[in-house]
Amino acid sequence: MKALVYHGPNDKSWDEVPGPTLIDDTDAVVRVDATTICGTDLHILKGDVPEVTPGRILGHEAVGTVEEVGTAVKNIQPGDRVLVSCISACGTCRFCRVGRFGQCLGGGGWILGHLIDGTQAELVRVPFADTSTYPVPKGVSDEEILMLADILPTAYEVGVLNGHVQPGDIVAVVGAGPIGLSAITGAKLFSPSSIIAIDLADARLDAAKRFGADLTFNNSSEDALAYIHGLTNGLGVDVAIEAVGVPASFELCTALVRPGGHVANIGVHGKPATLHLESLWTRDVTITTGLVDTYSTPTLLKLVSSRQVDASPFATHHFALDDIMTAYDVYARAADTGAIKVVLTQ
Amino acid sequence: MKALVYHGPNDKSWDEVPGPTLIDDTDAVVRVDATTICGTDLHILKGDVPEVTPGRILGHEAVGTVEEVGTAVKNIQPGDRVLVSCISACGTCRFCRVGRFGQCLGGGGWILGHLIDGTQAELVRVPFADTSTYPVPKGVSDEEILMLADILPTAYEVGVLNGHVQPGDIVAVVGAGPIGLSAITGAKLFSPSSIIAIDLADARLDAAKRFGADLTFNNSSEDALAYIHGLTNGLGVDVAIEAVGVPASFELCTALVRPGGHVANIGVHGKPATLHLESLWTRDVTITTGLVDTYSTPTLLKLVSSRQVDASPFATHHFALDDIMTAYDVYARAADTGAIKVVLTQ
Amino acid sequence: MKALVYHGPNDKSWDEVPGPTLIDDTDAVVRVDATTICGTDLHILKGDVPEVTPGRILGHEAVGTVEEVGTAVKNIQPGDRVLVSCISACGTCRFCRVGRFGQCLGGGGWILGHLIDGTQAELVRVPFADTSTYPVPKGVSDEEILMLADILPTAYEVGVLNGHVQPGDIVAVVGAGPIGLSAITGAKLFSPSSIIAIDLADARLDAAKRFGADLTFNNSSEDALAYIHGLTNGLGVDVAIEAVGVPASFELCTALVRPGGHVANIGVHGKPATLHLESLWTRDVTITTGLVDTYSTPTLLKLVSSRQVDASPFATHHFALDDIMTAYDVYARAADTGAIKVVLTQ
Amino acid sequence: MKALVYHGPNDKSWDEVPGPTLIDDTDAVVRVDATTICGTDLHILKGDVPEVTPGRILGHEAVGTVEEVGTAVKNIQPGDRVLVSCISACGTCRFCRVGRFGQCLGGGGWILGHLIDGTQAELVRVPFADTSTYPVPKGVSDEEILMLADILPTAYEVGVLNGHVQPGDIVAVVGAGPIGLSAITGAKLFSPSSIIAIDLADARLDAAKRFGADLTFNNSSEDALAYIHGLTNGLGVDVAIEAVGVPASFELCTALVRPGGHVANIGVHGKPATLHLESLWTRDVTITTGLVDTYSTPTLLKLVSSRQVDASPFATHHFALDDIMTAYDVYARAADTGAIKVVLTQ
Repeated sequence: MKALVYHGPNDKSWDEVPGPTLIDDTDAVVRVDATTICGTDLHILKGDVPEVTPGRILGHEAVGTVEEVGTAVKNIQPGDRVLVSCISACGTCRFCRVGRFGQCLGGGGWILGHLIDGTQAELVRVPFADTSTYPVPKGVSDEEILMLADILPTAYEVGVLNGHVQPGDIVAVVGAGPIGLSAITGAKLFSPSSIIAIDLADARLDAAKRFGADLTFNNSSEDALAYIHGLTNGLGVDVAIEAVGVPASFELCTALVRPGGHVANIGVHGKPATLHLESLWTRDVTITTGLVDTYSTPTLLKLVSSRQVDASPFATHHFALDDIMTAYDVYARAADTGAIKVVLTQ
Repeated sequence: MKALVYHGPNDKSWDEVPGPTLIDDTDAVVRVDATTICGTDLHILKGDVPEVTPGRILGHEAVGTVEEVGTAVKNIQPGDRVLVSCISACGTCRFCRVGRFGQCLGGGGWILGHLIDGTQAELVRVPFADTSTYPVPKGVSDEEILMLADILPTAYEVGVLNGHVQPGDIVAVVGAGPIGLSAITGAKLFSPSSIIAIDLADARLDAAKRFGADLTFNNSSEDALAYIHGLTNGLGVDVAIEAVGVPASFELCTALVRPGGHVANIGVHGKPATLHLESLWTRDVTITTGLVDTYSTPTLLKLVSSRQVDASPFATHHFALDDIMTAYDVYARAADTGAIKVVLTQ
Repeated sequence: MKALVYHGPNDKSWDEVPGPTLIDDTDAVVRVDATTICGTDLHILKGDVPEVTPGRILGHEAVGTVEEVGTAVKNIQPGDRVLVSCISACGTCRFCRVGRFGQCLGGGGWILGHLIDGTQAELVRVPFADTSTYPVPKGVSDEEILMLADILPTAYEVGVLNGHVQPGDIVAVVGAGPIGLSAITGAKLFSPSSIIAIDLADARLDAAKRFGADLTFNNSSEDALAYIHGLTNGLGVDVAIEAVGVPASFELCTALVRPGGHVANIGVHGKPATLHLESLWTRDVTITTGLVDTYSTPTLLKLVSSRQVDASPFATHHFALDDIMTAYDVYARAADTGAIKVVLTQ
Repeated sequence: MKALVYHGPNDKSWDEVPGPTLIDDTDAVVRVDATTICGTDLHILKGDVPEVTPGRILGHEAVGTVEEVGTAVKNIQPGDRVLVSCISACGTCRFCRVGRFGQCLGGGGWILGHLIDGTQAELVRVPFADTSTYPVPKGVSDEEILMLADILPTAYEVGVLNGHVQPGDIVAVVGAGPIGLSAITGAKLFSPSSIIAIDLADARLDAAKRFGADLTFNNSSEDALAYIHGLTNGLGVDVAIEAVGVPASFELCTALVRPGGHVANIGVHGKPATLHLESLWTRDVTITTGLVDTYSTPTLLKLVSSRQVDASPFATHHFALDDIMTAYDVYARAADTGAIKVVLTQ
């Protein structure tokens, strides 16, 4: 079959490789009907994720059709259409028992396109298939469901729910890339009185408005803290969601938050940040980090089906799977192309 | 009257000063039957708390007898014996309405011995007397109740409740000074399976054992992280409570905590710490800071009355109020004197 | 001044009475700019609330202008425009300290138009004015704010928050009168996937649709349980909100709820209900009751100001305050008149 | 093998029957080292649980040694010593995903000794073995672990955690049989200021004192409500735990609870109760029901291992498994024999 293979930093190609086979009796092999590219894939290609070794097929998001299942798989069968989640779950370890699937100690967690071959291929082997796939509901397009493989549950769980967004809150989302836009989408489910998107690029702030931000602020030249204090009687926001992954944006979030508020970090960080405990120690702040667990995926499937969440605007560009090299180029140049998520279908 | 007056860094004296009078109609004047000295008072005396200006009477903890009340005071009257809390609460601002009295916007918060004259005196004016004092229950000694003015609610709210200690948890308390010992006392209310005290001084670790720590570890020469990983299958502790107030101890807490665990900062910090987001971003960690609110004071009064909490071992040294200069010396040399809390009575 | 005076069962009149004066130093006297009639007022007039004695001025909802304040009132002053809440709060008792103002032990709770004279008058004395009134925000009409005196916080706190409505939930609201419509309004803030209104009258179900119910069901002749089971694979709804106040509707709620779901009772009951523990004991059901506390009033004021909540459709009929006898008649005949809330202004 | 077989109401015998074999690939066959008898078994024998059909082997609690596992079982193997829980969990359905294993839709829930053959036998087939058994920790006796098969997690989850017992609370436990004693044991983990056991029999109240009740009250002749009001300034208890299963005891719990308090029903009910909504509707009461989920079993295993919970006093009588007919007799006559739990070993 054909697959997008990582050959080391800055080196990937669309190669002919052997197709996957069942290894464990809990595996499924799934034909990839639609997949996409994640910002994390770009990190891998920069060499930032050393546990990804040359030869690895990338990708951790897919909607597909089950081809084959192991003997211990009970809940899906060949022909079923499924969402393949970025998180695999053994279903029995101490973390899976409490729904913290991203921390699975039994061989799951984020493994697809990371520790084992991934979804940017014609076929993918999905371990722990019963607990790592979800039936595709009727009446919703593949490309909407595809947004539930990673980006929407990540922003919802790690940003919105960890940040404890509540009706009437003022929410700052720092970073208006795909994850920030997902956080805006998720936050709106709780009817905050105001969502303020903060970013360095006007184009991303325009997208934030389309996705429902009430206010936008370009902090490339102006002082976001003064702006937020002006809006909030000097108190700060109820929730600050970090959706960039650099120290400056995290530190901004900890400055923007009001006493008693929440900072929810979603960004993928490569460096430490400075935590100003000399001012924060008295401020009753809660700071959370997190890898997505996908415990919210069933809820999000209901919300997309009932049209409470419109996932369609994320899919800005469409390609045949065979054109994935072009898709990577378009996605990597998002500032120019306006790409939020690219959809690849076969 | 006599009072302990701050005259600037490293300069205090036991002076004759005018007694307090009612200013607002919600004030009470309280005769101080028992007071104590806090680590924060030592910080003030080093000049670390610049909003404390020369001439200020220090102290924010007392048990006393009401002498006089303003016309708007409803719930206490002359002769009543009351706990004077370190936190004053206006009772009507947005934060007081939700029990977050430490963040009071209406003129309360931590003001005694800070922004207004405090309790290390024969008499003290207590603003917002209805919402800032608590009746002393029968059958409990003044010196036990005195521990509820600051140290016990601080450790309980900011350490134990913010840290979400639960039955069966493994809890690390970093720092075994008075606040760390209070955190151990508070954590035991939730029946953790193990409390591990970590400190640089064996004398403090001995105290930790007396207060109920199951295990102690001196990290002056050995690697606390390796020790904790050895105890926890490499996962880390469920809750790490910071009770020192320096970057190293906070950073240790963030290293010790398991995925999905809590870091609760109680320490008073003067410098920023480094937050290792490059490893923490995937670890589902919750970090909290906080100033005490004293919302738990009624609960702690019940727990001391019912002997679920034994506050008596905190009071290691006793002095007449007139001897407060000696008491300060003993408390400041805790490493030598073994002082945890000094009790001053008149 | 003129006021609506209760003279005993089925006997009320619009009388000339002495105006109110300050009694306690925490009182305010407020000129009533807008008031309304509550279903509870009709209960009182039937004689169902015996602690209301002849001579009592009815009404517990108002928007007004402060005329005079007691010496201990700090936060409002003559000329301020305020929302007068149905709940008065002493601000210092054990329940007020934790935001449970409806259970106030210090002389507050629901007292207006119940234990003391109320708001259906030209002027009203408001006890504990600092903690029982809210500033009227700019840019919102009096009649919208008036809906926050009782009906919206009641439905939001006792129905939606107690019922723990979450994104994606299926919510049944049993009873589509004013409180049921408020519950629908409040539930929508949490983006349930579906709200099902159930009532015996098609006219009320039509109103439910206008207020945002996704589905409606008339259970006067058909089986609501079979209908709900059909929609939910036999499991039942996530949340069932009781908004009638009779045993049958409560019992229906307990039958409709899924294992692990919530039944939130808002209805005012005069008789016991049967609780089918022989089937419920295994079903992990949470049942809540409650009097409104108005802890959510500040949040709802923000939500109305930011247009997340549109309170205007509740005000179906408008009268001069002098016409209150007619207004009572229109409101009492809601089935014919379609009245949801009547607004009385002077 | 030998097994205790139900032949219909009031008819059981210790019979020679065929041993169990693996049916599904997720099954294990476990040799029963220790088992016990539950109050529910007595209900079955009275004919109260009609879905138990003649020929069924009873029992849903065991500690044993794995004999054989199906091909899909990953986490246990022959020779492992395991706790067999009363609840089996498929691990993949919507309820198992959120830890609500008692409501399993995938073929689990309470099935042992109910819908399939149970543990009162030399061998038992355990479905979903990976998610329905727990490794026995070192250093704890079989008979202590056996108490974690049902009684302790049931009382802890359905009574203590659902009832939201907190430090300082006043807790009433109505019914001091085995489940009530377990509730006392579990409640003490949260350091309530007082636990009051209420029962009709002095012998059970004596046991309650031994298990840690602070106060006891015999309500066969005296008024429990007056007694509780006397203790609580007329307010009522923070938490009332129902541990009997008859309408009167449930109704007593709803009368005893303070405004804002919790009623947690554990009792197995055969008849409806009366819910006095005419008084409860204003009292902010939360009432919960529940079947045990065993999500707390890992926590309880830690607590027993660390000696925070002493499970040994529950085991009052010991028998060889062959003597189970005698054990049933002793257990059924608990009022005379003082039996709390009988332990059967082979």
